[in-house]
Amino acid sequence: MALMTQEWKREHLLDTSQLTLNELKAILARARYWEENWRPGMGPYRGRFAANLFFEPSTRTRFSFEVAEKKLGMEVVNFTPDVSSTAKGESLYDTVKTLASLGVEVAVIRHSDPEQVKALARQEVGCKILNAGAGHWAHPTQALLDLYTMLKHFGDLSGKTVAIVGDIAHSRVVHSNMWSLKRFGAHVILSGPQAMRDRDCEQEAPYVPFEEALQTADVVMMLRVQLERHQEKLFTSKQDYHKQYGLTLQRLRLMKPEAIIMHPGPFNRGVEVADEVVEHPRSKIFEQKANGVWIRMAVLEHALEGEKA
Amino acid sequence: MALMTQEWKREHLLDTSQLTLNELKAILARARYWEENWRPGMGPYRGRFAANLFFEPSTRTRFSFEVAEKKLGMEVVNFTPDVSSTAKGESLYDTVKTLASLGVEVAVIRHSDPEQVKALARQEVGCKILNAGAGHWAHPTQALLDLYTMLKHFGDLSGKTVAIVGDIAHSRVVHSNMWSLKRFGAHVILSGPQAMRDRDCEQEAPYVPFEEALQTADVVMMLRVQLERHQEKLFTSKQDYHKQYGLTLQRLRLMKPEAIIMHPGPFNRGVEVADEVVEHPRSKIFEQKANGVWIRMAVLEHALEGEKA
Amino acid sequence: MALMTQEWKREHLLDTSQLTLNELKAILARARYWEENWRPGMGPYRGRFAANLFFEPSTRTRFSFEVAEKKLGMEVVNFTPDVSSTAKGESLYDTVKTLASLGVEVAVIRHSDPEQVKALARQEVGCKILNAGAGHWAHPTQALLDLYTMLKHFGDLSGKTVAIVGDIAHSRVVHSNMWSLKRFGAHVILSGPQAMRDRDCEQEAPYVPFEEALQTADVVMMLRVQLERHQEKLFTSKQDYHKQYGLTLQRLRLMKPEAIIMHPGPFNRGVEVADEVVEHPRSKIFEQKANGVWIRMAVLEHALEGEKA
Repeated sequence: MALMTQEWKREHLLDTSQLTLNELKAILARARYWEENWRPGMGPYRGRFAANLFFEPSTRTRFSFEVAEKKLGMEVVNFTPDVSSTAKGESLYDTVKTLASLGVEVAVIRHSDPEQVKALARQEVGCKILNAGAGHWAHPTQALLDLYTMLKHFGDLSGKTVAIVGDIAHSRVVHSNMWSLKRFGAHVILSGPQAMRDRDCEQEAPYVPFEEALQTADVVMMLRVQLERHQEKLFTSKQDYHKQYGLTLQRLRLMKPEAIIMHPGPFNRGVEVADEVVEHPRSKIFEQKANGVWIRMAVLEHALEGEKA
Repeated sequence: MALMTQEWKREHLLDTSQLTLNELKAILARARYWEENWRPGMGPYRGRFAANLFFEPSTRTRFSFEVAEKKLGMEVVNFTPDVSSTAKGESLYDTVKTLASLGVEVAVIRHSDPEQVKALARQEVGCKILNAGAGHWAHPTQALLDLYTMLKHFGDLSGKTVAIVGDIAHSRVVHSNMWSLKRFGAHVILSGPQAMRDRDCEQEAPYVPFEEALQTADVVMMLRVQLERHQEKLFTSKQDYHKQYGLTLQRLRLMKPEAIIMHPGPFNRGVEVADEVVEHPRSKIFEQKANGVWIRMAVLEHALEGEKA
Repeated sequence: MALMTQEWKREHLLDTSQLTLNELKAILARARYWEENWRPGMGPYRGRFAANLFFEPSTRTRFSFEVAEKKLGMEVVNFTPDVSSTAKGESLYDTVKTLASLGVEVAVIRHSDPEQVKALARQEVGCKILNAGAGHWAHPTQALLDLYTMLKHFGDLSGKTVAIVGDIAHSRVVHSNMWSLKRFGAHVILSGPQAMRDRDCEQEAPYVPFEEALQTADVVMMLRVQLERHQEKLFTSKQDYHKQYGLTLQRLRLMKPEAIIMHPGPFNRGVEVADEVVEHPRSKIFEQKANGVWIRMAVLEHALEGEKA
């Protein structure tokens, strides 16, 4: 995974792996500050510009960043690939450099190709790059909000076990989460169907049967099944997947009394997670979304204040 | 039409039929307040968030809400179905609940399926739902701005006759308008081609020939012909429709001296309304659009202040 | 070209040709004022509304206007053709008039058909029209930012030679630039392949061979090759075009010592301009983008203050 390689400028946030434990703690502390203190009308970065460039579809991440930017008082421009000059063949570098020339200080980017995002961060683009999900490689703000959600519940993660279950192979959050969770002393285990396993991840965390994962974990993090991305038909139907790997009310009873349920979303009700489980008292799924705004405010602040710190 | 059934939480605005005469009057009074008092920079709801979710195309309603939200000082996020997670199969409930988790207090929704909007309003979504047009069922803010426009012209509507003419069967505004007009003592009559009649509406208001409607009405409200939605070819051409049911300058002369022309838009010049009639001195068509902003400001305020009242 | 014909209301900005030398100077002076004095949070037009209507794709112009509007404190609504009522067949006039009715004071329009934009400017639409590029006819704010960039570099343009090179026939900026450059005493020459010549432009400026243009010019303005718009295959490949008409490092050495490189963008690296030339010390390409914001702020201000002046 080469997580420790620091190949880009530190002012950009490309993955959790670039952050020291102290930097992680500082971001989490600022997120808590915003959660406790933000009020409508507050806006320390009034009149400063952020751009959101989403080359792949997204609801929660895009709007979460947009809300975070606006809660900080920032002005926001939203770049939609099809109505803009990428239709004329412009490169990502030229698009971002153009936005920076216009006065944009932070570019939030989701892209299918991590190499393009990394290449960008190695160059002089004139603004800070925040990775909002790059292929299957990394999704640092998701990992940070997951971390924040767990710390709010448990206080401390050392010795806790986090089970990540499902479509490991197609997830962009697993790597980012494994890194930050380990820095906080948590133990990660993986589970899911054979065909959705990922060789890289297995070098970092063991695969266990689903039942064992449920019984052992303090956090059960279910991943979205991206059936559309699997070339061979893995399951005869969504019902079939649900039967074998869905988190049902029945399986929830196997979990430890304090254990919580998480999901990075968007979730498929009735596939990897039962309808009744999504809003179960032990589910943090919608709380994760709320926490995402505070984390993204902290990350934006970290980027904008980077030189000072 | 079951207009009186109150099956959803009152904090949401789904149709005019849920509003008492006093509530209608309160909203109209606030619209007048904003029309008379709003100045650039005023923004009582600064830093509070609205989301516009338009699952069907719209210019005037979407921008009217966006302008209203921004005139109130609100921050706005615009949800466009194709670039977001509904492409990954997310339900309306989960999308709206996610936005609410991010801090959105009001969701303005246009959707083709009224049942989905009603279902939403029966659940705990965490934000206020404003219906911006649901299928052919209801479009309450259009009815409110129509009402406001008529009251500005006539002062009082009791005893006045409003003729709604054209494609009744495919209109989303007819039901909402009939309800609110009746509460203000107006008499509604309908007119239009046989094939565009609507059985539900006929139980509430009589159909009359076009000429009679023109001679009797104080308000002639022309509806957009949605020829594309009719399965059988009703007319050989738009010209043919115009000849039989278009509001021409010649037909305008049949109207009473004080009578006004309205249209919810978008209008088809040369089809249901002649080019020269759109901006005729007796036409309120563009004034309706201007009034829509004040009404939507009042409706947003009503939603946000609901608990206090 | 009929540049002098003043057929529309002066409050709209349709082309540079409508501006006197004094008006041009006033706009340039205000651009400089904004460049030197703008700070985050400044916003003289807070709470006033601009609409961006881009019927053709654009990155730099659209975002440049949006950033300019927001730097002035304006509220912005962005109109995207496919999700709005033009899908229902609404005319440009009715769309703009509707936006004006909602409170929009300035409409920034890019459209493929200049006649529609001109027709709009002859009518009473209720808001100011700023042309953000109309077909191949005119793109006044691009010409103004080009002018501003040249004046910043040279101080004075009288006697200077500007070579415009490449796809003259499909460019929207050539006409607008020729007009404003002449008013400042600059001499324009043209160059490029035979099939990309434009008869109208040739009446105003001579065509010269590429090498001669490079040796003579104080400004070398390269135009984007719009190969996709040429019906006959002009070149066997992009490489072929680059070889014959691309601005390479080797050709750059032919230029005068003080001469600068410009490009209205979006540029094709490796086609009309070599990769290494785009960010060469003599290139003003990204500075042009930065200047575009200050120019557009000045143009918006000019439109909004028009009546006062």
